[in-house]
Amino acid sequence: MTAFDDLMGFARETAALEQVSGRLGWDQETMMAEGSGEQRAEEMAAMEGVLHARRIDPRVGDWLAAIDADTLDHAGRAQLRHIRRDYERASKVPARLAAEIARVTSRAQRIWAGARAADDVSAFTPILSEVLALRREEAQALANGGDLYDALLNDYEPGATQAEIAALFDAMRPRLVALRAAILERPEPKGVTGTFDEAGQIALSRVVAQAFGYDLNRGRIDKAVHPFSSGSGNDVRITTRTNPADPFNCLYSTIHEVGHAAYEQGIDQAYLLTPLGKGVSMGVHESQSRIYENQLGRSHAFTGWLYDQMTQTFGDFGIADAEAFYAAVNRVQKGYIRTESDEVQYNLHIMLRFDLERAMIAGDLLAGDLEAAWNDRFAADFGYGVDKASNGVLQDVHWSVGLFGYFPTYSLGNVYAGCLYQALRRAVPGLDGQLAKGDTHRATGWLRTQLQQHGGLRTPRETITFACGAEPSAGPLLGYLEAKFGAIYGL
Amino acid sequence: MTAFDDLMGFARETAALEQVSGRLGWDQETMMAEGSGEQRAEEMAAMEGVLHARRIDPRVGDWLAAIDADTLDHAGRAQLRHIRRDYERASKVPARLAAEIARVTSRAQRIWAGARAADDVSAFTPILSEVLALRREEAQALANGGDLYDALLNDYEPGATQAEIAALFDAMRPRLVALRAAILERPEPKGVTGTFDEAGQIALSRVVAQAFGYDLNRGRIDKAVHPFSSGSGNDVRITTRTNPADPFNCLYSTIHEVGHAAYEQGIDQAYLLTPLGKGVSMGVHESQSRIYENQLGRSHAFTGWLYDQMTQTFGDFGIADAEAFYAAVNRVQKGYIRTESDEVQYNLHIMLRFDLERAMIAGDLLAGDLEAAWNDRFAADFGYGVDKASNGVLQDVHWSVGLFGYFPTYSLGNVYAGCLYQALRRAVPGLDGQLAKGDTHRATGWLRTQLQQHGGLRTPRETITFACGAEPSAGPLLGYLEAKFGAIYGL
Repeated sequence: MTAFDDLMGFARETAALEQVSGRLGWDQETMMAEGSGEQRAEEMAAMEGVLHARRIDPRVGDWLAAIDADTLDHAGRAQLRHIRRDYERASKVPARLAAEIARVTSRAQRIWAGARAADDVSAFTPILSEVLALRREEAQALANGGDLYDALLNDYEPGATQAEIAALFDAMRPRLVALRAAILERPEPKGVTGTFDEAGQIALSRVVAQAFGYDLNRGRIDKAVHPFSSGSGNDVRITTRTNPADPFNCLYSTIHEVGHAAYEQGIDQAYLLTPLGKGVSMGVHESQSRIYENQLGRSHAFTGWLYDQMTQTFGDFGIADAEAFYAAVNRVQKGYIRTESDEVQYNLHIMLRFDLERAMIAGDLLAGDLEAAWNDRFAADFGYGVDKASNGVLQDVHWSVGLFGYFPTYSLGNVYAGCLYQALRRAVPGLDGQLAKGDTHRATGWLRTQLQQHGGLRTPRETITFACGAEPSAGPLLGYLEAKFGAIYGL
Repeated sequence: MTAFDDLMGFARETAALEQVSGRLGWDQETMMAEGSGEQRAEEMAAMEGVLHARRIDPRVGDWLAAIDADTLDHAGRAQLRHIRRDYERASKVPARLAAEIARVTSRAQRIWAGARAADDVSAFTPILSEVLALRREEAQALANGGDLYDALLNDYEPGATQAEIAALFDAMRPRLVALRAAILERPEPKGVTGTFDEAGQIALSRVVAQAFGYDLNRGRIDKAVHPFSSGSGNDVRITTRTNPADPFNCLYSTIHEVGHAAYEQGIDQAYLLTPLGKGVSMGVHESQSRIYENQLGRSHAFTGWLYDQMTQTFGDFGIADAEAFYAAVNRVQKGYIRTESDEVQYNLHIMLRFDLERAMIAGDLLAGDLEAAWNDRFAADFGYGVDKASNGVLQDVHWSVGLFGYFPTYSLGNVYAGCLYQALRRAVPGLDGQLAKGDTHRATGWLRTQLQQHGGLRTPRETITFACGAEPSAGPLLGYLEAKFGAIYGL
């Protein structure tokens, strides 16, 4: 046994334990009875204690010091890079600070939920100040004198910088604002009518999940309040939800989560339960969920097939034909809520949050000034004012649980999806003909070969560049959005 | 913080991690997709590694040495007793041997399944010899020169000895053989006819579970191939199964598992996630499942209520009235299989296994001679020969996975249930009137107060003695069986 073998044996056990911890989270959201909650919190904390001790285990440092990376192959060096990065990160944060962050964010999340329910920003501001101060302290511990926001961002998107993202977003914003304004001057397409029974929605969501290649022999689909996917390797589960008036909520949540799950299920089995055996970043993960959901799932071709499936399942639901159905699926409407937003407006929601949170981390925006800043920016980009805090600054859980640096990865995912879709269309001629039959095989197969199977082998940016054959940029996404919505809305 | 506080903090985390490990097992039997099996094995092994390291953690030895037990209250001393026992047990078994047992029994279970399917004892004998040799080696490590079988038995029933159990069983056996023979000379009561739809069985099993006090706010009911209960404290789940021709399989499996679950759910919340916070032994656990299932669930009074419920759910199923239903529920039939057996014959199955396995551990019976010994004993106690190995020596999984010393706890549970039922009837006048309305509240309340809430506070034998106000003995069970079946069969 070499030091590398020992290190990988240890890492493999850690990865297995991380899967266990993730499975507990899945169980909590899908299966666990309400009265089991307090005990579960203690079980989760015990698992976190085990994982934390492994992350800072001094043997890892010894193994890392003993290994000569030049003796390893490409994958071995990538494993080492992930392990070193995680070890150094964990070792930089004092245990006292990590415990304090866990304690305060747990309280902050409860306070946020109450403040949102009461539309009362002032109830949330003091605890947000605390969370912010702690995360800034953590960023200082991590940054080694470098940029604080980048130190946090790197937890979710290793290697990315706020400067690079800001440049990307600043270039996108005027074109998205203009597209949004043009669309909303046009007549609104008709939406679906009637009620859609739950059993039909669930049955159709299974058909759709399998149409997108979800492997039910290594996963399962359950209901949850907020849809999510969970797990890596050979046990990747997804959840969905139903709304009797809106079948798209269930169907497109499912396709979105299938995108995440396909990434995890598609990773090379040689990387199973290793640092390479999971999605490489939040942004790359989101690129998969978004390209499945939007570029493929909301395409003209695929919605034609879906229209037939929906008609067979639900009969008449107020939409005359596949053309009108395509418009209904892609409807752009005014609204305050990020998670209910469409392809065009979604990124504007993200840019707003990105700019505000990096100002907070920089110390240029205080928690007490956040609501005013939010409302000003919203009015500027969306053209109307926020009506209440639960539709504005209090709508997302992220900041309450200390997630600063997470939001931009959603839009990075959209940008990446735009690049991937452009490359996919070049690589797979006749794609529309396949999608029109509900056949995503060639598309998902290309994504698997080009991106999913490689897991964490490359950095996030390299992963996209390798898959597309070109550096990521916003051009493809913007071009796609302007063409698609220009056609739907007759711009 | 005293050494005792530190030790209890550590024990509490260990208990939480044991719950997590148990939950993985539940998931595997109820939710997990088939293709996730290999990964799950690795996840379970990683959890077992974490738990094993904690069991032999030298800090536990240091804390134990530092604590003055005289400064603790009754519960504190009981906690200490459990922790010391587990620590000493784990420290006695060399890691090499524990790993070898895990490896060989995993293989042996697969070989056993194949041998049973092929009715081929010779395919199983060699690996059984290996398992036996390893468990004898482990027993030698544990026994400190004492009795080998007792050393294994003590994993499941702390404090029990084979001498004491053999005396108990030897006194029971002739009366049970005689009762069995007398019953099988009488006409057989009519069984149910028709098919019982699954939804109706599941719905009724939920009604019955709740009638027996199962708390669905701290648990859930799912289907599994082999019913089981899982978890302690505030997350105790049960499973059941359905057979379209036999509704009793589902209903009485459910009541049985509710008995196990009621014990776990009923333990004092002050003991949550501590060594006292789980059932004290397999025998005491089985006393709860058996008294729920048999003495209460198969009583004349309760089956009267159940007959009405079944009629409402399924309509006519070929049983004329509540009296005939009582006889059908308690039917005694010839058969080879322990798990399908009735109250009268079940203990004869156990005694056979107990005598054979202690002879094997003593070195007086070799694996190669096991089948002949089994068949001889079966013919002697049941009055007819075994027709094939899958109906004989290959029917149970236990020995393949190294469970020697486990079987007698099933009958100990029956003996304990007999004692508890006698004490319960004295303590709760009018019990039949309540059971006849499907009301088990007073009965289960008495069991909770007298036994369940105390968890591991006393030794198993003391637990029963405390609950009943008398030392356990076989008399109450035998008297109960002879009276009940004497009446049903007109003996």
